[in-house]
Amino acid sequence: MTTAKETRHERLVARYGRIAAQLDELYAKLTDPISRMGSAAALLHHKMPHFFWTGFYRLVDGDLIVGPYQGPLACMLLERHTGVCWAAIDRGESILVADVHAFPGHIACDGRSNSEVVVLVRDGDGEIRGVLDVDADKPAAFTPADVEGLEQIAALIYGTG
Amino acid sequence: MTTAKETRHERLVARYGRIAAQLDELYAKLTDPISRMGSAAALLHHKMPHFFWTGFYRLVDGDLIVGPYQGPLACMLLERHTGVCWAAIDRGESILVADVHAFPGHIACDGRSNSEVVVLVRDGDGEIRGVLDVDADKPAAFTPADVEGLEQIAALIYGTG
Repeated sequence: MTTAKETRHERLVARYGRIAAQLDELYAKLTDPISRMGSAAALLHHKMPHFFWTGFYRLVDGDLIVGPYQGPLACMLLERHTGVCWAAIDRGESILVADVHAFPGHIACDGRSNSEVVVLVRDGDGEIRGVLDVDADKPAAFTPADVEGLEQIAALIYGTG
Repeated sequence: MTTAKETRHERLVARYGRIAAQLDELYAKLTDPISRMGSAAALLHHKMPHFFWTGFYRLVDGDLIVGPYQGPLACMLLERHTGVCWAAIDRGESILVADVHAFPGHIACDGRSNSEVVVLVRDGDGEIRGVLDVDADKPAAFTPADVEGLEQIAALIYGTG
């Protein structure tokens, strides 16, 4: 039996698959990670109606600093080991947050953000080079399908997927 | 006598001045050019209703490749010495194009773009490091006030303003 929920889940999985396939084709032309991040942010932001802010923070000299993104002005530099992006790096895994206001140490770059997914961006040596961070203005906007889809896309940046 | 046209011009100049002042304050925290480009693209894109695509192309190893931007998916790599961005670099000056379709060799990253401004991004040694490129979906959407305002902002990226 197919429920409405399963159908929504399947549509989302299929949409991430199409975005990943389109990026994979684009990325064949250019390995520059900044250009790749810019293209991923553009495609995700315009194809996913529930995304309010879509972009990357890069780990540079121990700081987590903003990279290419789409959406309202964001924090340029994230206070070390604070907030969801740093938590993902410190734990070494993706984080799905249904209510960012309940997350200890949440950094409110934009007060309109209510839920968030952060996945890691690793290079070919497995080193963490940053995160792909997506915010929604609605609470609990994301599901495990978003985490898996975003992980699939983050793995394309350095061609580790 | 103040005409409506002068008033619109003055409002635009004042708006660019406020954006430049806000970026100048933000940039005091961080010199990374990619983070600075991301912040400039975000502020400009959200404060300027006539901007359809707002972002940067970076000159890397002789190629002009996309950097942080806001708006629809763009070309990742621009064919050398072709189109408005390369023309600005080859001529060493800003270019204002009222109708991109009439520009020889125009690269249509997005068919909805109709007019364009490109200004140079130089580093502290005066070397061209890329361009700040803005597209509008309307023809003749830009005036010399946009060129001057965007030059003011481009000069902040490497702190040469």
